[in-house]
Parts: sequence; C-alpha cells; structure tokens
Amino acid sequence: MNSTAPFSRHNSIIRRTLAPAMSPGPGGKSACIFCEIAARRVPAHVVYEDDATIAFLDLFPYTRGHLLVVPKHHGARLSDLPPADQHALIRTLAELSRRTERLTPDYNIGLNTGAKAGQVVFHVHFHIIPRYSEESPFDVIDRVRLTDPEARSLLDVLSAA
Amino acid sequence: MNSTAPFSRHNSIIRRTLAPAMSPGPGGKSACIFCEIAARRVPAHVVYEDDATIAFLDLFPYTRGHLLVVPKHHGARLSDLPPADQHALIRTLAELSRRTERLTPDYNIGLNTGAKAGQVVFHVHFHIIPRYSEESPFDVIDRVRLTDPEARSLLDVLSAA
Repeated sequence: MNSTAPFSRHNSIIRRTLAPAMSPGPGGKSACIFCEIAARRVPAHVVYEDDATIAFLDLFPYTRGHLLVVPKHHGARLSDLPPADQHALIRTLAELSRRTERLTPDYNIGLNTGAKAGQVVFHVHFHIIPRYSEESPFDVIDRVRLTDPEARSLLDVLSAA
Repeated sequence: MNSTAPFSRHNSIIRRTLAPAMSPGPGGKSACIFCEIAARRVPAHVVYEDDATIAFLDLFPYTRGHLLVVPKHHGARLSDLPPADQHALIRTLAELSRRTERLTPDYNIGLNTGAKAGQVVFHVHFHIIPRYSEESPFDVIDRVRLTDPEARSLLDVLSAA
C-alpha cells in the first residue's frame, strides 16, 4: 500500500512526539494532552479561547495555518459531549473557519474518531486544514514541525477577532 | 501527480451525475441539489430528518454507510449558517455518529469548503465515512454507485432512533 488515510498518516511520528506529554500525571494516570493544553499546563500556539473551547496551531501542520479546534470538556467522541459543549464547539469551528479565510477561501474540516480513522489523541478535535491548491497535502510524507517564526506570523493573522 | 485530496476525487464523476438535478428550475435559476433533497423534490436514501437538518446516504460511498449530514438552511459555508442552524447541525452530526457506531466504532467526519478543498455542492454538508480498516478508502478510483439493496440494508441499520 503506498498511501494511507487523511489525518491518519504519521501516527507514529505524532505518537512519538506526544509521548512525553502523555506521561503519568500526579495522580499516576496518563494526562490527556488536550486537557493539559486547555488547562494551560502545556504550551500551545493558541489562536482562540472561550469558556468551553480552545483552538491552536497543529504542531505538525499539513499546510500553513493547520488548526485544531478542541472542546475543554474531555470526551473521545462527539457524542460524548453535552449539547452545550457541542454548540460551543461548532460556533468556535465556524469562527475559526471564518478567520482561516484570511489565508485562503478553501479548507478541509476533519474529525477522526477511532484508531482506524486515524484518531491519535482520544479527546475530540476538529482539524481545519487550509488548502492552497488542488494537490493533496495528505500525501506528504515529511510533515515538518511548525517553527516559532511561522507560528508567530500565523498568530498575527488568526488571533485577531 | 498520482493522488488527489480526500473528498475531492472524482469531482468529474460527481458533477456529471449531479448535472441533471442541477438543471434550471421554474424560476430559471439553477436549483441546489441539497435544497431539492431537503424539500423532498429529489429522492434520497434519508436516514434522519428534523426541522433544521436532514441526513442521507451518499450515492457514491467511499465505504459502506457513507452519510451526508446537511442543514436545510442554504449556505455554502459553515459561517453562513445562523447559530441555531449550526447547533442543530452538530446535534444531528453527533446523533448520526452514534448510529454509525452500529456499523463500526471508527469513522472520519469531513466538511470541505471551497473548490480546492473538494467542495462540489456549494451547500454545507458533513460527510461521515465509516472505516473498517486502516487502509485508506480515499485512494479508490472506482467509487461504485450505491445499489438499492445495499441502501435498504443500511436504512434498516441507520434509520432507527
């Protein structure tokens, strides 16, 4: 097989990268990396936050401006979220979609559920992946880690309301 | 280029297939196929409907049980929808995700915005694409039209509340 699923590529890279952040917390239980980011105990390039949601740049972007939109309520699946958190999540998704249009009018939104669908972090998260051409960015083998200058340039564009 | 984007493959097939349904309506304006389905003027394998949303089987499924979840309010982009329609949409998306788990616990949810992202019908629609293995279903060249017996079998599974 010479190709894998969108958003499921490089799971091994992502797993390796996340491994340190997934180490056992004070209670001896593995911490959820997105809960840690939401609690601001782990740094991220945050572009948006409200009481119920947070959005930040993906550290291994498929394309420039690749974002994750995450509910603060922990749940692996969309149906695990109470309705109020679902509502907050789609409002933030729409808001960040609107901001993404400062970069390009074209973008994919994706939410992977289950390991076979490429879910790596078992806390609901929507991807917003800007598209600058019709060529698939999902075939790229070498996702390059986001650099700090690039992150700062994107924060300027995406953090403004 | 030997591969294209998820959900953007076979645009030509889809466009060709949809062309008859996109012919000018009584007012001389091109009808939106999803508005026509929501109004029940064009048939579809509907698995769910409420006042604000409708969900039906994709006629050219990537995998068995591939669904579209559509707001009745016409808008090309998520941010074109009023908040109440956004809320209704994610509730239906969560409900149909839950029902999809009758087929498999693994699935991709996708929403394409803009032609470069593979959007073909310019009316917001989420895909729910069940995954039965880690092999990508998005590389399949020959998406086969859903057959009526297959549709009936899926309606049995997915239409029940």
